Amino acid sequence: MMNAIAFEHDTLRYLDQRFLPLKEVVVATRDYKRAIEAIKTLAIRGAPLIGIAAGYTVVLAARQFKGKKKNFSAFISKAINEIETSRPTAVNLFFATARLKRIVERNLAPCDIPELVFKLEQEARAIHNEEIENCEQIAQHGVKLLKQEFSHVLAYQRLTVLTHCNTGELATGGIGTALGVIKRAYEAGLIEKVYASETRPLLQGLRLTAFELEKAQLPFEVITDSSVAFLMQKSLIDFVITGADRIATNGDTANKIGTYSHAVSAAIHQRKFYIAAPISTIDFNIPDGSHIPIERRTSLELTRIYGRTIAKESFPVLNFAFDVTPYQFISAIITDKGVLKPNFTDAIAELASEQLQTQ
Amino acid sequence: MMNAIAFEHDTLRYLDQRFLPLKEVVVATRDYKRAIEAIKTLAIRGAPLIGIAAGYTVVLAARQFKGKKKNFSAFISKAINEIETSRPTAVNLFFATARLKRIVERNLAPCDIPELVFKLEQEARAIHNEEIENCEQIAQHGVKLLKQEFSHVLAYQRLTVLTHCNTGELATGGIGTALGVIKRAYEAGLIEKVYASETRPLLQGLRLTAFELEKAQLPFEVITDSSVAFLMQKSLIDFVITGADRIATNGDTANKIGTYSHAVSAAIHQRKFYIAAPISTIDFNIPDGSHIPIERRTSLELTRIYGRTIAKESFPVLNFAFDVTPYQFISAIITDKGVLKPNFTDAIAELASEQLQTQ
Repeated sequence: MMNAIAFEHDTLRYLDQRFLPLKEVVVATRDYKRAIEAIKTLAIRGAPLIGIAAGYTVVLAARQFKGKKKNFSAFISKAINEIETSRPTAVNLFFATARLKRIVERNLAPCDIPELVFKLEQEARAIHNEEIENCEQIAQHGVKLLKQEFSHVLAYQRLTVLTHCNTGELATGGIGTALGVIKRAYEAGLIEKVYASETRPLLQGLRLTAFELEKAQLPFEVITDSSVAFLMQKSLIDFVITGADRIATNGDTANKIGTYSHAVSAAIHQRKFYIAAPISTIDFNIPDGSHIPIERRTSLELTRIYGRTIAKESFPVLNFAFDVTPYQFISAIITDKGVLKPNFTDAIAELASEQLQTQ
Repeated sequence: MMNAIAFEHDTLRYLDQRFLPLKEVVVATRDYKRAIEAIKTLAIRGAPLIGIAAGYTVVLAARQFKGKKKNFSAFISKAINEIETSRPTAVNLFFATARLKRIVERNLAPCDIPELVFKLEQEARAIHNEEIENCEQIAQHGVKLLKQEFSHVLAYQRLTVLTHCNTGELATGGIGTALGVIKRAYEAGLIEKVYASETRPLLQGLRLTAFELEKAQLPFEVITDSSVAFLMQKSLIDFVITGADRIATNGDTANKIGTYSHAVSAAIHQRKFYIAAPISTIDFNIPDGSHIPIERRTSLELTRIYGRTIAKESFPVLNFAFDVTPYQFISAIITDKGVLKPNFTDAIAELASEQLQTQ
């Protein structure tokens, strides 16, 4: 493990991912505002890792509270609100803050502040541990699915896979979602080679996924995002697997910009296109992808790289950070609770009712 | 005009496009080897401009010849061979060198070396002037086509267009091919906005096309290559037009990597996808795209930007510089001799026979 994130001695530690793979900068902070800044600036990124960080950030905020207990509720609500507005798309963030809010609500009356902080920290750690376990579950289900769906191919050769952005340890705190499936599938002898699309503008594929694949000693090649269609035309890619930032109840999936482009290429070339994500990524409140707000980010993400200007900063840029892949393009959604197949509306409704029963 | 290329006082002058848009570096050289290096390193790029540069490079080589006339033929053949191996994909390069070879063959016996050099320079200038005229012709045909095909839309609104890589003055020495159509269509009141895809790895869209569009005062936005499918899903792009590096006789078109990806997105979203190129781009000797050699370039194009390392140079990279868009994805090919529509095999065969008759 790389320790993408850790909480020790009342301190949040994280790898500042903006400097990878060239520098491994570990930041330690007790200031919740600095943690929020890390989420905003993508020093911490990846939907599940953002959820974990959001949990610990609430703990930091609670520790920073000074004053009378009657003022705590207003203080922590304000802090949680700041955390929630740091990134609009990742549902994991809201999932995490909602859990910590419940802890506050349930324990504010009976507990004193140190007790409450302790309970918040317990809950934040629980979120983190659950994400680690979720990754393992996703990977197990994913490997099983690949063995089933590619049994005819695997009888005589291993598979080549494309993944986009970064969905590994650096994104999840565990082995990863899409990348976790790839790692475990490689260990099971199913994978010949991984193609990592570089993922402009922030190059998470080139910088982070390549970094993880090299550390894990998996055979891989980095490609430009726009090479994917051509490599499929040349029969170099057998299937695609990516993570998700938010999944609607009909299966429409928001993920890093470029994911939909890969799905379109997969559709034209008749390749399987899988989403791997914990069910915490499913937003049971929205019927389809049109309800997912898509973040537009600064033009500087295109015109600067590592703080260096590569094109005129006056150039107008349209920089959507995510796109939505309609459910029709998705072959299966691999979750920690099993594999969802079309019709996703029914599969997700069933999952929702199971979840209600187990709560 | 920006004077992307000029030949004056026995000297080749060119804008070193690797430094645009931040610095406008003009290089002047009398050394044909330096000119070859400029083509190899993409200081000079764009299929038509490479053809023009190849012509002038032969002139430089001929001027550098020292020795007895009987040795000229071997010397210039070797130089032309060096020029021809500088970039494997652009057919314009071979088209230009073939013309200069013919000049040598026809004039070597009757002329002395200075006379021969003069005739070579005349031919190189003719290639350049023809490219300028070709661009104007392509633009005229393109504007007419757009008026026809979008008459129902243009009755109440202007069009948004996506282009890829750079096909303007910086690529052609004239107003451009695809970008020439866009410029003239904008002047004719047909265009609302241009989307320029940045074109990784070398960012010709972000650096060069944006530079030209800003200078020409056209409304535009730069986008990442992988945004295209999403913008089409959001109905932000009405049609796509790109250049070509080589066109086979069935219409299969090799162009900058990512072109095929845009064509796939256009197909899925039912948008028109046009190629704009002079007929010198058509290779009448090959039946389909499988005969076009696709250049693989160094991994450093991904791991470095402007000479600065942004990812580990040890990372394995698969960097195809071009892709092939099968003819089925192409709505029309706009040439200087008119618009070709499917069936392209027949349209190109007809063009070939017309060409033979006029020669």
